[in-house]
Formats: sequence, structure tokens, C-alpha cells
Amino acid sequence: MTAVIEMVEKEFLEYVKKISAYGEALGLIYWDLRTGAPKKGVDQRSEVVGMLSGEVFTMSTSEEMATFITSLSSEEAKTALSQTTNKIVEECKKEYDRNKKIPAEEYKEFVVLQSKAESVWEDAREANDFAMFQPYLEKIVAYTRKFVDYWGYEDNPYNTLLDMYEPGMTVDVLDRVFSELRERIVPLVKAISESENKPETSFLFKKFPKEKQKEFSLEILKQLGYNFEAGRLDETVHPFATGINIGDVRITTRYDEHDFRGAVFGTIHECGHAIYEQNIAEELTGTLLDDGTSMGIHESQSLFFENFVGRNYSFWKKQYDLLKQYAPGQFDHVELDDFYRAINESKPSLIRVDSDELTYPLHIMIRYEIEKALFNHELEVKDLPEVWNKKYEEYLGITPENDAVGVLQDVHWSGGSFGYFPSYALGYMYAAQIKQAMIRDLPEFDQLLEAGNITPIKNWLNEKVHQFGKTKKPLEILETITGEGLNAKYLIQYLEEKYSSVYRLN
Amino acid sequence: MTAVIEMVEKEFLEYVKKISAYGEALGLIYWDLRTGAPKKGVDQRSEVVGMLSGEVFTMSTSEEMATFITSLSSEEAKTALSQTTNKIVEECKKEYDRNKKIPAEEYKEFVVLQSKAESVWEDAREANDFAMFQPYLEKIVAYTRKFVDYWGYEDNPYNTLLDMYEPGMTVDVLDRVFSELRERIVPLVKAISESENKPETSFLFKKFPKEKQKEFSLEILKQLGYNFEAGRLDETVHPFATGINIGDVRITTRYDEHDFRGAVFGTIHECGHAIYEQNIAEELTGTLLDDGTSMGIHESQSLFFENFVGRNYSFWKKQYDLLKQYAPGQFDHVELDDFYRAINESKPSLIRVDSDELTYPLHIMIRYEIEKALFNHELEVKDLPEVWNKKYEEYLGITPENDAVGVLQDVHWSGGSFGYFPSYALGYMYAAQIKQAMIRDLPEFDQLLEAGNITPIKNWLNEKVHQFGKTKKPLEILETITGEGLNAKYLIQYLEEKYSSVYRLN
Repeated sequence: MTAVIEMVEKEFLEYVKKISAYGEALGLIYWDLRTGAPKKGVDQRSEVVGMLSGEVFTMSTSEEMATFITSLSSEEAKTALSQTTNKIVEECKKEYDRNKKIPAEEYKEFVVLQSKAESVWEDAREANDFAMFQPYLEKIVAYTRKFVDYWGYEDNPYNTLLDMYEPGMTVDVLDRVFSELRERIVPLVKAISESENKPETSFLFKKFPKEKQKEFSLEILKQLGYNFEAGRLDETVHPFATGINIGDVRITTRYDEHDFRGAVFGTIHECGHAIYEQNIAEELTGTLLDDGTSMGIHESQSLFFENFVGRNYSFWKKQYDLLKQYAPGQFDHVELDDFYRAINESKPSLIRVDSDELTYPLHIMIRYEIEKALFNHELEVKDLPEVWNKKYEEYLGITPENDAVGVLQDVHWSGGSFGYFPSYALGYMYAAQIKQAMIRDLPEFDQLLEAGNITPIKNWLNEKVHQFGKTKKPLEILETITGEGLNAKYLIQYLEEKYSSVYRLN
Repeated sequence: MTAVIEMVEKEFLEYVKKISAYGEALGLIYWDLRTGAPKKGVDQRSEVVGMLSGEVFTMSTSEEMATFITSLSSEEAKTALSQTTNKIVEECKKEYDRNKKIPAEEYKEFVVLQSKAESVWEDAREANDFAMFQPYLEKIVAYTRKFVDYWGYEDNPYNTLLDMYEPGMTVDVLDRVFSELRERIVPLVKAISESENKPETSFLFKKFPKEKQKEFSLEILKQLGYNFEAGRLDETVHPFATGINIGDVRITTRYDEHDFRGAVFGTIHECGHAIYEQNIAEELTGTLLDDGTSMGIHESQSLFFENFVGRNYSFWKKQYDLLKQYAPGQFDHVELDDFYRAINESKPSLIRVDSDELTYPLHIMIRYEIEKALFNHELEVKDLPEVWNKKYEEYLGITPENDAVGVLQDVHWSGGSFGYFPSYALGYMYAAQIKQAMIRDLPEFDQLLEAGNITPIKNWLNEKVHQFGKTKKPLEILETITGEGLNAKYLIQYLEEKYSSVYRLN
């Protein structure tokens, strides 16, 4: 390596470390704001957030950054630099380009609009009044369409938005896998709704004291391999996981004393996210690569733990007795089989976040189709409620009685987060596909769960997925593990087998 | 105001706001590190602390700052600018001068030495081995002496160190008040130790469940006027209060199930600090003036609440029944008078932080005299243990059996914090003097406590002390309130009256 490149690399890495440090401070501030920061200090804290975010933005789009990128992107430099440095340059370039292509004035207007739109959306949902939100959403869509024009796109404008959350993902791929999914899930949902073997679920809703739910959650977290020396569990209205740094990945959960499922499965879900970030290679600290590689892969890890571990029969074969200890009396007369069927109940519902693992992908597909049509100018904002309701009838056989439980239910669009929803379903497909590959190495998967020995499963994921952070792209990870691209069939197989059994179909 | 000054002022205030924002982020990080940040993330978090502190240092000593100070310190500017801006300029200049006068290289060496010395001090105290710590302390003292030379001093080198924690305080003043205090407290301590009317205290140490202590502490905080919308209570080994911003002033406490006094009086003490910062004028946010004006005034507020409110007979006349509710059975057969005498027990002890309100100032005076001698080259580090032990015998009538409970007990010197200790005793004298002035306006002080109506007391302090933040100097505040300079007699009167009564002297 020439001395000059070496010197520039060193300076660049220091520069990136500073951006990363500001990001870490912001991470802690966000966690604190959501877990109990006193109300009266919030306005001033928002100023601090603005100041630090502004600094990150300035540093990411500075002349200095431009010079780093140019110097380190030459063929000579690329050959000389480590793979990691090349990857950091690539990430910085992507960010730089994205931010520089939008005129600063327009971006500022958009940021102001975003925060207004979000507060209007809240009121509109409260008032069940789409007309109130419509002009704001129209502006948000108009700005986003313009940004896509600035950014440019290949094949389909929506691809550019997908790429922000799932690098490399395209409409072509999604159209294919979603149509395969839809073809098999819709009839399955119908069969289930007509099944006469619905599980009994009333025992799920008896009082389960909050303190006991917490103790059980902590116990399960330990068993799953969540590292408490690198994390902590707190309580919030909306559960989340956040990696402040690799050694500090915190999760939160919520407790409903008359429905323990939220806490238990929510905790397991966030645990999956957290185990991902806790096990990213330490040397990626401070490089901006010490994060999940995409929304979809991140979600694959949370869903793997929530569904493939947490809703697995073998898992409860081991854990049911433990649960009984924490919920004295509640399950005394409930057989394991009945418990298992109850926690895997599926029925069409209107609200995405409350839906079950079988119907969940249908909620996502509806949003995907709407977003795709919006950015291909095949749909306008004013028609959203009608289209939304039609699609719910078509996919789930139910029609929202109003927009509050229909098109107004999600916060995402008010913030301009288009292209984000598909990640949720992608994560699910990735998870099923990864599981399939895992059992080639760990054919005793179910026996491990039965024995309460999650370590080999966790270690496998550490090795194949987690350690890489952002140094590998999502599809690169998937292909290396499974030997093929995205394939919906593993999720379909899993859902058909599982739900046929739970509902005793055929 | 000329347009140029106006423009420079605006830029300067923006610049200061940024320094303040970084300080706020640091404040939250420190709070988090002490209240439960996961162990594994601490090293990386320290990097972030280094980065942000470095930024604050760089901004405070930059060419840009120098230009701001010069432009805004002209007579023309001073006349044109608001009092607040003048004060900010003054603060920034003080900080700038202090930092710029020390050669950067030497300062760096000192920072490294500090952190080494602190860890050596920990080991030395553990091993009860002063010789181990001696060479480090010698270097710390040598550097500090050199720094004082760089900074310059008036009358006495130690004045420069005092001024860092208590602007305007001098050896002349301290010598006077401390000698007055000593003359009257030492005989009082002696009389008490010979008294045959010592309070019975065994009932203090019965089991008082932690949860109940916490509930009682929260109740008392509410009554004292701590604003929970601008703060929260957490648990730490070493209790503290920290103002992250004016709307977010957090406190912590600790719980000993066999001695509730630590939690209750510790909480009241930290509450005093917090009420100070919660009530600084909101417009000082982001100006670097939104903090207590000095260590001494800060301590006067915590001690006012801890001793003049929390250890007051009238206070317990109201609160004793409440305490009994939270500590079922513990005080059933204890009369209020006996309870009051027990919580005001005084006896000479070796450890400063465990001492009572009467003997506490003596611990401080010993440290003051040693520090003063060190910086006047009248004492060398090697002689500290001997001098320390002699003074404990002279002031308190007891001799440490070893250095671990003697000269090695405090962390301050290992970090080079010379000049800090006097603030603790100053705060105490300020508090007594302020109390004296307060009862001119609120002669019904004791009746207010008896009625559980603390609001007029708190409001009085808000108006006379808190609101000003750093816009007024400590002695300015004291003189405005009391019409005189520091005067030890009020504390002496208070202590003599109180302890004569508790120990039934004469």
C-alpha cells in the first residue's frame, strides 16, 4: 500500500469513528426518551438531537467526506485497502450520494413536513378522518416521488425505495415471491376460518401478574442466549431493541396482565434482534458497519426466534413447566397440546401489529401493492381508503369498518417511510429459508429445543449471519447459507404443515 | 447596538448552544453509566465520552472562541450586550484562559497521570498502603503547583484553587470562619462525648424493607416540591443528583434495609441539589449558565433541605406518622422526641462521609489546612499520614488506626481536586446564614414544616437563589439575601442550640 493511501485511510477511519460516536450518543438519547426521560426535559433534548444529527449529516456530506471517497475509490486504493475499509467507503458513498442529490432547501422542507404530517396523522387516526390526513400524505408522496427522480432508478421507481431498507431488493423479486405466497396462504386462511377444529383459547387471558411475567421473560432471555452483560430489559408501550454499541444492545417489552403473550413473544422477538447485534464482530465497532445488514435480515432474526423457536412445539415441551411455575394455577388443567394450539391460533384481523404469523404476510402484501402503485403513478392518495378496503376483503375476507382500523393504522407513511413494509415479510421468508439450511447442519434442531439447549442454534446464526454486520449484503448472506436466492417455498411449506396440524385440516 | 456586535453575539450564542448540547449528551451518558449501562459496552462508551469531551475542549479553546471573546469584551460591546450575554462571555473567557495557560503537552500528561493515580489510590486504600500511593500523589501535587504558577494567583497560591470551585473565595475568609467554627465546635463535640444523656438509637437499625423505603422517599420528595415531570429517582451505590437540562434533573439514592437513614436523608440531600437546578430560569437553557453558581451554593441547598428541613423537629412532627405507615411496627414504641434525638446523634468518627452534621465541618477543616499547607510549600506529601492523624486527634479526639480509614479515605486528591473540600463546609455556613435571612420573611418556618407546607420555603429559595443559575456569583447571592458577607456565627448558633437540646447540656 502506498504511504499516501495508508495515511488517507487512517484519517478516514478516524473521521468515520467520530460520526459513529455521535450516532452512539444519539442512540442512547433515543433509548432514554422512550424509557422514562422526564417530560419537561424533552424539548431541550430534541434540540440536542437536532444538533448531533445535524453534525452527523454535515460530516457525511462534507467536502472532506467527498475527498475521502474520491481518494479511496480509485482502483489502486481499492486493491490496497482491506475489505472492511472498502465496505465502509461504499457505505459512506451511498449515504453521500443519497443526501447530496436532493437540493438542501427541498430536504429541509420535507423534514418540516414529515414532523407536521406525523402529528396530523395521529389526530386523523384519533378522529377517524382520512380527509384530514390526505393533503399531508399527498405532499409526502409528491416529495418522495421527486426524490426518487433525483436519485434515479433501475427498471422501477419503487426499486429505489426498496433498496433503502433492503439493498438489492427489486419489484421483480417481490412480485414473484409475494404471488407465490398469496396463492397458497389465502386458501389456507380460508380453510382455517372454515375449520371446525378451532383451538380453545380462553385460558390465555386469565390474570398473570406483571412481576411474574417479567421474571419468566428474564428466564427465557437467559436460555435463548441474550447476554445481560451486554444489555438490559426495560418496559415501554411499544417494545423495541436498540444497539447502542455491540456491547450494549437493550430491549424493552410491555406487560398486559390479561394477555401474557405480548410480553413473552414480544420479548423473544426483540431478543432475536438483540442477539444479532450483540454478536457482530467486535472489530466492526466504530466503523458504521456494526449494525444489521438490512431491515429484512434483522427481521429474519427476530422472527426466527419468535416463531421458529418461540412458537415451536418442542420449545414448549421444555418450557411449559417453567411457565406454569410463574403463572400459578393458570395452566393447571391445560394440556401441552392445547396450550400449543392456543398460542398458534390464527384468524383474519384488521390490525397488522396484532395479527398472527399466518395472516401477517397478507397485511404486508396489501401495503406493498399500494406503495408500488403509488410510485408507478397507477394510484393516487385520494383513492387509498377504497383500495385498502377492497384488498382487505380480497386477501383476508374482512372489510375495515372505518379508516382508523384501515388505511390510517400505520405511522410509516406519515414519515415518508415507503419501501419499508416489505422487509417484514422478507424477514419471514429469509427466516424460513435459513431454518431449512440450518437443519442440514443441525438435524437435531427440535431435540435441542426440547433439551433447552439453544446454544448450538445461536452459535450457528452467529457464525452464518450475525458476525458480518453490514460487511455482507442481505442476498450475499442468504445465498452463501442456502445456495440459492430468495425462495418463498420454505415459508409456504412451514405454514402449511404447521397450520394443517394446529387446525387438523384434511 | 451596532449591527456588527449584534451579529457576532448571535453567532456566539449559537456556538455556545452547541457546546452546551454536547455537554447535555455527556450528562446523559454519565447518568446512564452510573445507573445500569451494560458492562460490556462501557469501553466503547468511554471512547464516545472522550470524543465529545474533546469536542467541547476544542470548541472552548479554539481560535473562533478567542475571536468571540475579544470582540465581545470591548467596552462598546459590554455596554451594548445584555447582562446575560456579558456573563456568558465572562464564563467562556475564564474557561479559555484556564485551559490555554497550560501547555497542551503538560495537560495531556496530567490527564494520563490522573487516571493512573486514581486506580493506584483504589489499590493503595484496599491494601492500606500509603507508600504505594505516595509517588503518584507527589506528582499530582507537583503538576498542580506548576499549573497554579501558570494561572497566577493573588495573595496565596491556594486562592487560585479555591476559586475554581467557589469563585471569589480566599484563604483569608476561610481562615477566619474556620477558626471561629473550630473554637466553638471542638468544645461542643467534647461536651457531647462526655454527656450522660446520649440518645438511644437501636431502633433505627431494625429491618425496613427496601420497597417501603423507596415509597416513603418518593412521598417525601413530592412533599418537598421535587418535580417528577422534570426528574426521576433511581438507585446507585453512591447517590447523586445530576442536571441533564433544567427540565431533566435526576437523583439517585441507595437503600440499606438495616439503616433507613441513608436512603431518607440521602434522598432529601439530593432533592435539595435537584430543586436548585429544576428552578433555574428557563431562558438560561443552552447558555452554559444553567447550572448552580458554585459548589458551595449548591451544597447549601442540599444541606438546607437535609438538615434545616429533614432533621428538624417540626418536620418530623408532621412526617413521623407517615414514616410509621411505611415501616410497620418499627417505631411503635418510640416517642417522637426519642426518634428526633436518635436521628440527630453525634459522635466523633474517622470517615467523613459517615459523619454527622456537627462533626462534619471538622473533617473539612482538617483537609483544608493540609491542602493550604501543601500549596504554600509548608508540607510535603510524605508527611501527610502523620499530619492527618495528629489533626484527627486534635479536632475530633480520635486517631485513625491505619491510613485506609485515615489519609487514604477520599478519592479527591488522586484526581487533583484540590480546593474542592472547603465547599462542603461553606455550603453549610451559607445554608445557616440563608436560613436566618429566610425567617425574617417566613417567621412561621417551623409551623410550615409542621403543616407539611414546604411550598413557601421552596418558593423563597427559588426566588432568592435558584433562578439565577450562574448569572450571579456566590457571594453576590449571599450578600443580596443576608446583607453581609460570609459569617460563621449562624451555623455556630444553630449547632449550639440544637445539640445542647438534643444532648440536654447545661
